[in-house]
Amino acid sequence: MEIFHRSFEENQEVLKQHLQNNRMTRFRTEYLALHYYDQAKLFEVFDEDERAKLYQYLSPSELANIFDQLESQDEHIESYFDEMSNPYAAAVLGEMYADNAVDVLNNIKDREKVNIYMHLMKSDSAREISQLINYLDDTAGSIMTTEFISVEANYTLKEAYQHLKSEAIQAETIYYVYVVDSEKRLVGVISLRDLIINDDNKLVSDVMNTRIISVQVNDNQEEVAKMVQDYDLLALPVVGFDRELLGIITVDDILDVMQEEADSDYSGLAAVNVSQEHETPLSASKSRLPWLITLLFLGMGTSSLISQYESLIESASVLSAFVTLITGTAGNAGTQSLAVAVRKITNKTEDDDFFKSLVFELLTGIITGVIVGVTIAIVAGIWQQNFPLGIVIGISMAAAIIVANLAGALIPKIMTRLGFDPAVASGPFISTLSDLTSVFIYFSIASTFIDLIIK
Amino acid sequence: MEIFHRSFEENQEVLKQHLQNNRMTRFRTEYLALHYYDQAKLFEVFDEDERAKLYQYLSPSELANIFDQLESQDEHIESYFDEMSNPYAAAVLGEMYADNAVDVLNNIKDREKVNIYMHLMKSDSAREISQLINYLDDTAGSIMTTEFISVEANYTLKEAYQHLKSEAIQAETIYYVYVVDSEKRLVGVISLRDLIINDDNKLVSDVMNTRIISVQVNDNQEEVAKMVQDYDLLALPVVGFDRELLGIITVDDILDVMQEEADSDYSGLAAVNVSQEHETPLSASKSRLPWLITLLFLGMGTSSLISQYESLIESASVLSAFVTLITGTAGNAGTQSLAVAVRKITNKTEDDDFFKSLVFELLTGIITGVIVGVTIAIVAGIWQQNFPLGIVIGISMAAAIIVANLAGALIPKIMTRLGFDPAVASGPFISTLSDLTSVFIYFSIASTFIDLIIK
Repeated sequence: MEIFHRSFEENQEVLKQHLQNNRMTRFRTEYLALHYYDQAKLFEVFDEDERAKLYQYLSPSELANIFDQLESQDEHIESYFDEMSNPYAAAVLGEMYADNAVDVLNNIKDREKVNIYMHLMKSDSAREISQLINYLDDTAGSIMTTEFISVEANYTLKEAYQHLKSEAIQAETIYYVYVVDSEKRLVGVISLRDLIINDDNKLVSDVMNTRIISVQVNDNQEEVAKMVQDYDLLALPVVGFDRELLGIITVDDILDVMQEEADSDYSGLAAVNVSQEHETPLSASKSRLPWLITLLFLGMGTSSLISQYESLIESASVLSAFVTLITGTAGNAGTQSLAVAVRKITNKTEDDDFFKSLVFELLTGIITGVIVGVTIAIVAGIWQQNFPLGIVIGISMAAAIIVANLAGALIPKIMTRLGFDPAVASGPFISTLSDLTSVFIYFSIASTFIDLIIK
Repeated sequence: MEIFHRSFEENQEVLKQHLQNNRMTRFRTEYLALHYYDQAKLFEVFDEDERAKLYQYLSPSELANIFDQLESQDEHIESYFDEMSNPYAAAVLGEMYADNAVDVLNNIKDREKVNIYMHLMKSDSAREISQLINYLDDTAGSIMTTEFISVEANYTLKEAYQHLKSEAIQAETIYYVYVVDSEKRLVGVISLRDLIINDDNKLVSDVMNTRIISVQVNDNQEEVAKMVQDYDLLALPVVGFDRELLGIITVDDILDVMQEEADSDYSGLAAVNVSQEHETPLSASKSRLPWLITLLFLGMGTSSLISQYESLIESASVLSAFVTLITGTAGNAGTQSLAVAVRKITNKTEDDDFFKSLVFELLTGIITGVIVGVTIAIVAGIWQQNFPLGIVIGISMAAAIIVANLAGALIPKIMTRLGFDPAVASGPFISTLSDLTSVFIYFSIASTFIDLIIK
């Protein structure tokens, strides 16, 4: 079909014209032939009038496929639903995968609207959604879907296959069939591969795998992602406290979780939200300023410390040439140590031996500190023709690096213990903090040996 | 089975005893009942003598399942193969998924050894591996497998299903059947779901999806990951220049790619490799020092610039109190702008309008710079009871932030144009660079208005 050879821009132009000229059949044929993802990308560039036509041309279930792609990533999603009639909007939500519909509903600020949608929805969809809507953000429950396929252990494989066939259109994934007992407790799993390669007349109980890898509904989504990654799964069952099967998490949702977590760690290290798309410099500034201003006031501490040493600087102004070098290098070392610590925590590779990893960073700080310190002592001594000054700078540098390294390892651990996300604004925070300690170390040592420096 | 109720440590102890007491049958029963991932984790804690027994107890294909999990992530993998007899090692490699075997072979330093393995291997495995081994790192070719299922368009669904059933054990994924023409060119795809829900007697050509989403063998793995994520695929076909089907990439490999890319971006921002596991502080220091020393010498530029202004500082030592505040804040702003730019480039959300995003960061820099500048002008003016000083600091701060913001947006783009990875050591690099520009701006402005400041 010619449409597949068109670029995004060509499709955009042609489909916009179909909408504007009320060519419903051609629009439907060409638009619906595209992959849902491409339909979604195009939906985002239609204007309000074009969307109004589109809502008339597409059935709720056709639109639901598009919204399953947009999910909550599109910040305009609430306004799209506002544009639709309430019954149509409710039908779209009801036709979406339950986990995605919950994402959307959780992002709608007008809670009255949510109530209206829930009342207008088909009762089975509404039930599924209301089961999911109460799970906390970032837990297994919040990303699971209830559209899975389950059978009991006394089915034959043939019966299980027939059941799978009848459910295949609705289910989010058909590649695992879960085996439950009469109390709906999870007792086994059969992959579609096992179903296909084994003899039809065997019983499910003969073939099923009882080494079930599952998660609890309240487990953190990062742990869930780690399990899917480690065990190479396409879907992971979610159970309640009595091992009852509540839902499944599919690998496509795990890809989103990994992206989200990677963005959030990365954002933290830079004190900026990189996953936010800003349309104007004003909105970008609004999101960046809080951290800049907070860190500015933290940095004022360093300024006021330096101003305590004004007379020292007056008597040896050469000292000021090395302030940024020492604070900068210690900040770099602290950032390295912090990044390693945050990553250990978020990747759960951490053996959580608090003392051991502190000793590790202390020793690493001593080694790097001494090497960098000796280097700068020699360079500064030769440059300024003042070896006592070089030695003061070298010792200060080594001490500042050791302290920054320890702080880098400690801060994320303390934040985690206090229940904060260790990744938030961690990079600039450690740099700003280590400015303070580095200046203190430098000027304390320098004022002790001031007579040697001035000569 | 009781083994599933044992913890990792309990399993470790029991299985080690089985090996030490030559209880082959019990070892095999209990060890092989575990998930491959758990088998691999246990394998890593066995010692050399225990591994020697294990090589006798397990068949090459049983060991291959374990090594498919270890892949190249285990740095000892080369030494494991050294412990085995060459024919056994070759058989293990031949039984592994071809993409994983290639990963292992690429990491073996002794190339003579690789030749030996390739000669001892079954010819069809050797052929598959030698097809893959030449693809460049980080390309689609380097992560694809050749174990896919393909049919021709004139098959009935029943025939296609029979073919799938016969190939199901070997293939890496059975959830897509690819349709090729007589020249092996990719013309369509059928999901197993489509195969199941459609009438058996239909032709493949009637049911197949011709909207094929595929990648070229030389495409970058990040782009591949983005496509799998966007289109929610379980596997993605890889084609050559004539659209001939060469292999497939499965979603489990994409999870690894995403982890790798996230680690590499995160590492870059902190100038440290967070995916490297270090056993000693010495090896950790070795990997961190190169960046620390490089940035130290870059930072010397700032020191030598400051020392040019020694007489200025002598006449107004209060100026030195604000150096770290201005350099630190500009560094934070530059890091924010850089993180956004790097993320846009690596996520390819970039519309690549060089000029547009430069203007965006310029405007964002002006807004944040003016607000932070006014804030610090007032605070410093009141604190030092010196409003001309406050104004000099405020203007310097604003200018330094604007320049750092622009540099943060520019540097990753320049690095990309020059063919470098924009993420490498980007955070500390921008901080260190912006120290230099900030000091220059600050002291230039301060020396111009020095008469007003001293009063």
